[in-house]
Amino acid sequence: MSKSIKLAILGLGTVGTGVVNLINDNLDELKRRSGCNIMISAVGTRRQRDDIDPAITQSDDLMAIAASDDVDIVIEVIGGTTLAKDIITHAIRHGKHVVTANKALLAEHGNEIFALAEENKVHVAYEAAVAGGIPIIKVMREALAANKVNWLAGIINGTGNFIMTEMRDKGRTFDDVLAEAQALGYAEADPTFDVEGIDAAHKLALLASIAFGIPLQFDKVYCEGITGITLQDVNYAEELGYRIKHVGFAVRHQDDNNIASGIELRVHPTLIPEDKLLANVNGVKNAVLVDSHPLGQTLYYGDGAGAGATASAVMADVMDLVRVLCTNEQGHHVPHLAFIPEELSDTPILDAEQMTTGYYLRVHAYDSPGVLANITRILSEAGINIDAILQKPAHKAGQVPVIILTLPVVESQMNSAIAKIEALDTITDKVVRIRLDEL
Amino acid sequence: MSKSIKLAILGLGTVGTGVVNLINDNLDELKRRSGCNIMISAVGTRRQRDDIDPAITQSDDLMAIAASDDVDIVIEVIGGTTLAKDIITHAIRHGKHVVTANKALLAEHGNEIFALAEENKVHVAYEAAVAGGIPIIKVMREALAANKVNWLAGIINGTGNFIMTEMRDKGRTFDDVLAEAQALGYAEADPTFDVEGIDAAHKLALLASIAFGIPLQFDKVYCEGITGITLQDVNYAEELGYRIKHVGFAVRHQDDNNIASGIELRVHPTLIPEDKLLANVNGVKNAVLVDSHPLGQTLYYGDGAGAGATASAVMADVMDLVRVLCTNEQGHHVPHLAFIPEELSDTPILDAEQMTTGYYLRVHAYDSPGVLANITRILSEAGINIDAILQKPAHKAGQVPVIILTLPVVESQMNSAIAKIEALDTITDKVVRIRLDEL
Repeated sequence: MSKSIKLAILGLGTVGTGVVNLINDNLDELKRRSGCNIMISAVGTRRQRDDIDPAITQSDDLMAIAASDDVDIVIEVIGGTTLAKDIITHAIRHGKHVVTANKALLAEHGNEIFALAEENKVHVAYEAAVAGGIPIIKVMREALAANKVNWLAGIINGTGNFIMTEMRDKGRTFDDVLAEAQALGYAEADPTFDVEGIDAAHKLALLASIAFGIPLQFDKVYCEGITGITLQDVNYAEELGYRIKHVGFAVRHQDDNNIASGIELRVHPTLIPEDKLLANVNGVKNAVLVDSHPLGQTLYYGDGAGAGATASAVMADVMDLVRVLCTNEQGHHVPHLAFIPEELSDTPILDAEQMTTGYYLRVHAYDSPGVLANITRILSEAGINIDAILQKPAHKAGQVPVIILTLPVVESQMNSAIAKIEALDTITDKVVRIRLDEL
Repeated sequence: MSKSIKLAILGLGTVGTGVVNLINDNLDELKRRSGCNIMISAVGTRRQRDDIDPAITQSDDLMAIAASDDVDIVIEVIGGTTLAKDIITHAIRHGKHVVTANKALLAEHGNEIFALAEENKVHVAYEAAVAGGIPIIKVMREALAANKVNWLAGIINGTGNFIMTEMRDKGRTFDDVLAEAQALGYAEADPTFDVEGIDAAHKLALLASIAFGIPLQFDKVYCEGITGITLQDVNYAEELGYRIKHVGFAVRHQDDNNIASGIELRVHPTLIPEDKLLANVNGVKNAVLVDSHPLGQTLYYGDGAGAGATASAVMADVMDLVRVLCTNEQGHHVPHLAFIPEELSDTPILDAEQMTTGYYLRVHAYDSPGVLANITRILSEAGINIDAILQKPAHKAGQVPVIILTLPVVESQMNSAIAKIEALDTITDKVVRIRLDEL
């Protein structure tokens, strides 16, 4: 008789129900792959559910389940950063391994939670916290374990990518698509976390930590959402051969001796050349592109959300634990943040002003002679190289938008150049700027 | 002082040298990620190398190194299926863990080698054997461990993909591109394994085994290379919105109770719609698309060959082992073929005649009235549905090629329909057929 591993699933929303369904559908597969009996011993839910096997304990006392002797692994899928934190802490203190999909909690309190887990010799696994069903945590922590990561770029918010895709494909406005995304259940009633980039910033903080071996530093992620992107800019970008995507970037800067000197953490809309794979990740799909040495670039693509994808990631973590627990050994061998805790480095996170990207600029000017000459002179004096210019016919009487793409430049330089452009008499509006990454 | 793990690298060709370079470049990263001292204690090479640290033993007695007390992990990168097999077997019998990039050896003798490893309680790791630096073995065995795999489709031979890409992009002939690939070092002097699909079939046998939990069955892979693909067909496919790629497919068939009833293993050129990601994997890049339940489709993309990519995969396997060995525990917890040995299933591998795909047909006929009617009648009587037809103007006096795309059909049905078409008086040549997968 093979050994049994008992799971508690705390929360029976979309993800929790997905996990229950996965176990029902694939129980045979799970046993064949682990040689072990995997069973749900308890579910934590506010109201009793008729569709759950009566042999499984149902209770609304989540803290009791988290500490129960009848549980080996606690799966936290209630979300939020308050009750979830208490439950996970309680489970860890009672020697339970924890699997969670909670990106906000880990991005904000992960350093503390992982330290507690080390202390109690348990593992807190979080594959489902980033990019849904794409196994990017395992890939970064294990598959790329021999590489030095140079940078990564990820489309890691499905709702945001759905909105950007619909705007481009169907010429719809931001507000229109957002309303549909809410109706379809992709976006929350309060879409702030998605459209302001906070959800992506949570995920980026986790990815950056395991890429570079630095503590979680969510508060240092530069974060810009997609609410300011207009159809006009989407169309101009298209005309120039680019697509606007909402992307999270983590970039390692190094000195002349290859020592990390700073890390760029930024989440923002950016123009990407249309023939790059990331530009062709559409709808609610996610993808992460990683550039590392000596491997080069690899890309990981799939569903970034949804019951099935998230359940797949949760249960992959469970399977990792089961495969170890079934051999009577002591736990997981992969460090929480990919690097051993005493080796996490204090490489500084760069300020937004120090970040380097190309730019898309949309400048509105009175159509007077010399305006373009003035703009290009200012850019040139600031050491900013122009890659492309598109001047469209006037769409308001006397006003013409000028679109300029620049080569990469440090943000502080661009800031001062834009201030000078906006000070010109002939400029009628604020300069619209969107970053641009050639990838 | 942290524990030391000693590596032996057997073979100092491109890959072996890549591994040495990786360790030199990233030693600090390896220690930070494992908390462990990783060192090369010996290299096996036919001739003494000056560029190797003199502290490292160099020897041409590979068998002695494989059994040395001064070695924890043996890295086999000599290739081939004879000496490599003896060395790996010898290392296993002496209790060494083995890391290998040898797809041919494992596809042909893996069942025996893995059984010996189980018996000796060591692990034989082979991430580098499939798709170079793309961590597809880890993904399939661990990240997708809770999923039921429905099918996978992979561009898993870089040389073949380079040839197909150049033919399409630059209108070059097969022979012309092959000569360049050989000059660039992508293709061997004897390119048979690449262009006849054998290398891809080796890799597909490994992928299918870990996808479905079946023993390795290389000899049952249906295998067709790219030597028959002409520029003409590449161009017709393009005109119809498809690209021709050389793809390996592993497809699970199931009965009404969702029980696996058969498995399709096939490697061949196929038409793919141009807007699919796999159609846009170009040059020497590899990619594997996996469809599984409940995860859905995920894609893994990167360099399928080269010193850096292969070394990355070899050392990822080493890191997995190091992380376990450093904690004084007994070994690797992931089954060699993803499923525990006693759970491997004997689901039959289907004959080529039972496989189902769409088809691209190129039929040359005298331009006489009624020829198209005859062809479509034959297809219709065979129950084959036509998806598209392209009839080009005559390029030889009196002859017109007719291009037909069909919906999926069982191969045996297509065989008999083609026999009837070829028997028509008006048909002047063999019918050219290439498979087509909408993906």
